[in-house]
Amino acid sequence: MYTYDYLLNFTKSVFMKMGCSEEDALSATRVFLAAELRGLPSHGMLRIKDYYQLWKSNRINTKPRIRIVHESPSTAVVDGDNAIGMVAGVFSMNVAIEKAKKCGTGWVSTRNSNHFGMGAYYIMMALEHDMIGICMTNANPLVAPPFATKPMLGTNPLAVAIPAKNQPPFVADFSTTAISRGKLVVAAKKGEKVAFGYVQDKSGNPSDDPEIIEKGGAMLPLGGDMAHGSHKGYCLGAIVDIFSAVFSGANFGPFVPPSVAFLPVLEEKVGEGTGHFFGAMRIDAFEQPDEFKARMDRWIKTFRDTDHADGQPGVMIPGDMERLKEKEISGSGISIIPAVEKELKEIAEELGVKFEIE
Amino acid sequence: MYTYDYLLNFTKSVFMKMGCSEEDALSATRVFLAAELRGLPSHGMLRIKDYYQLWKSNRINTKPRIRIVHESPSTAVVDGDNAIGMVAGVFSMNVAIEKAKKCGTGWVSTRNSNHFGMGAYYIMMALEHDMIGICMTNANPLVAPPFATKPMLGTNPLAVAIPAKNQPPFVADFSTTAISRGKLVVAAKKGEKVAFGYVQDKSGNPSDDPEIIEKGGAMLPLGGDMAHGSHKGYCLGAIVDIFSAVFSGANFGPFVPPSVAFLPVLEEKVGEGTGHFFGAMRIDAFEQPDEFKARMDRWIKTFRDTDHADGQPGVMIPGDMERLKEKEISGSGISIIPAVEKELKEIAEELGVKFEIE
Repeated sequence: MYTYDYLLNFTKSVFMKMGCSEEDALSATRVFLAAELRGLPSHGMLRIKDYYQLWKSNRINTKPRIRIVHESPSTAVVDGDNAIGMVAGVFSMNVAIEKAKKCGTGWVSTRNSNHFGMGAYYIMMALEHDMIGICMTNANPLVAPPFATKPMLGTNPLAVAIPAKNQPPFVADFSTTAISRGKLVVAAKKGEKVAFGYVQDKSGNPSDDPEIIEKGGAMLPLGGDMAHGSHKGYCLGAIVDIFSAVFSGANFGPFVPPSVAFLPVLEEKVGEGTGHFFGAMRIDAFEQPDEFKARMDRWIKTFRDTDHADGQPGVMIPGDMERLKEKEISGSGISIIPAVEKELKEIAEELGVKFEIE
Repeated sequence: MYTYDYLLNFTKSVFMKMGCSEEDALSATRVFLAAELRGLPSHGMLRIKDYYQLWKSNRINTKPRIRIVHESPSTAVVDGDNAIGMVAGVFSMNVAIEKAKKCGTGWVSTRNSNHFGMGAYYIMMALEHDMIGICMTNANPLVAPPFATKPMLGTNPLAVAIPAKNQPPFVADFSTTAISRGKLVVAAKKGEKVAFGYVQDKSGNPSDDPEIIEKGGAMLPLGGDMAHGSHKGYCLGAIVDIFSAVFSGANFGPFVPPSVAFLPVLEEKVGEGTGHFFGAMRIDAFEQPDEFKARMDRWIKTFRDTDHADGQPGVMIPGDMERLKEKEISGSGISIIPAVEKELKEIAEELGVKFEIE
């Protein structure tokens, strides 16, 4: 188990050794560690190696000049200058928040960025300002639209945070596919098949093989098959892609660059880097904050108190599970799987940073 | 078959007989007929009777004073004064468009409204102004969140329209459930079972009975079961509910009033009427319109040209199917099923309006 502070200092040092300013290194570190605390290790320390290798391959800019390249009173397009995604993400969300302070709402589409980690981090930045936070990002292609035989969209997550009064905030952060890529990897490692409705083979037939992507297959949009609404999951993934990349001039759909250095840079580009979309809405742009939050409390309580099936947990509010995890992990410390500890130790040695495996 | 103009004059007359101004009657009529043209009769002439009966029961206000009750430069809350949903909807979308002209984007949450028909109508209003259109609405409760045994959310649709250049626009409009209520009704009428993943019984168990809602059951969110991401469909339905009703002060979740007069008014209220949410974003708030639309053309063409499975149609762009329908129905005329023709004839006779069954 590692303390938050130990990993904060370590990770910050790693990014500073890679050339980041202290401020940028802290921005990135906080997003990685927020994922660890919320029980999402797939977006935590596991990803340090990806960024380290992108940096070693000169595929990431640790001294970016991130800037607004187009704007209106309530909107902006940000060029991330090929920054670490978290650094471009925090910058962009802050722009959205500043716009919202003046106009009621602020909306930012960001190009020339990279994998920004856990979306929940950015939307929760808005909560501190009594704002609703929204974010989306596109990602490298894994998902086939209905009838397609090729992956055309990423798992393209969508996240929304809404503040309440005495209740904890509503924090939804979810990909627009039925399951995460991570769950396929776990099933493959265990030698298990997966349920139908998650993936298809290279000819577009239903498949239960968790390694089908490596064989030319693809993941399916939320809904799984057309009869269960996969065209709606496709619409959602497409909306996220367009808001993130067509609005900003990033690469869209099948052109989104890989977030790992072991995959080659794509030959064809239709824009710059990966794209994100951020929104901030002042709650007092709609209602006095006290009244708004009291209504939100009532919404949450109404749903939490719903009758539930015997032997099942009660109805959850989006964010409940992660909040429980955060409480638990904040107390116990952060555990890192041995394979990742070993990676971090190697990175530490190469960069001349201290990292002691517990 | 009826011509568009014949139904326009008829429907407008019906609403004017119910006390609407000519302008309001036209607003409502256009939304109903747009649904007929787009091949969505479930939101077309079939619904005239619902509004007629609500009016006869004094449950709808045909002389509303719709007004902005709260605003910021980019936002407004509209009170629909218990208007016909289409009348409140068109008013609210126009407010969003006006806000966007000044601020780049405009966002309106509307309370005290009623069923607004087909969401695609409002988002397409934005296209004429070189804007992206967004809308959502809550609806009477039919859908159970994961673990719940009670319907807590409506089918809560979400719609987004994005303009292109030479390609037709991207127009997505979909409920946040796996299927529509209408498909359950059709299966029940045919005496057929439905696939699993659409509905559950009153104890929360999976069901294939299309009449299970009448027996205390509920529809399932997009995703169907937790293993296939129904918690994500629940998040989406919840976001639509909160944006539509918590932002505006409408009834949310299980308190959303029924849109038909044969169901009683609910005893408990947590706000006013039904809620909607509208957004308009100027495309030049993000990019020069020509460049934006060229990018959108490329996005559409990339997806349309995707390799597709043998014997399957190609990949569709959201809105393609409805556009084909509109072309077909604009040519052939609008067909109305006999049961609805009979209803319209009765309404016509009661109101002293002419309606000739073809």
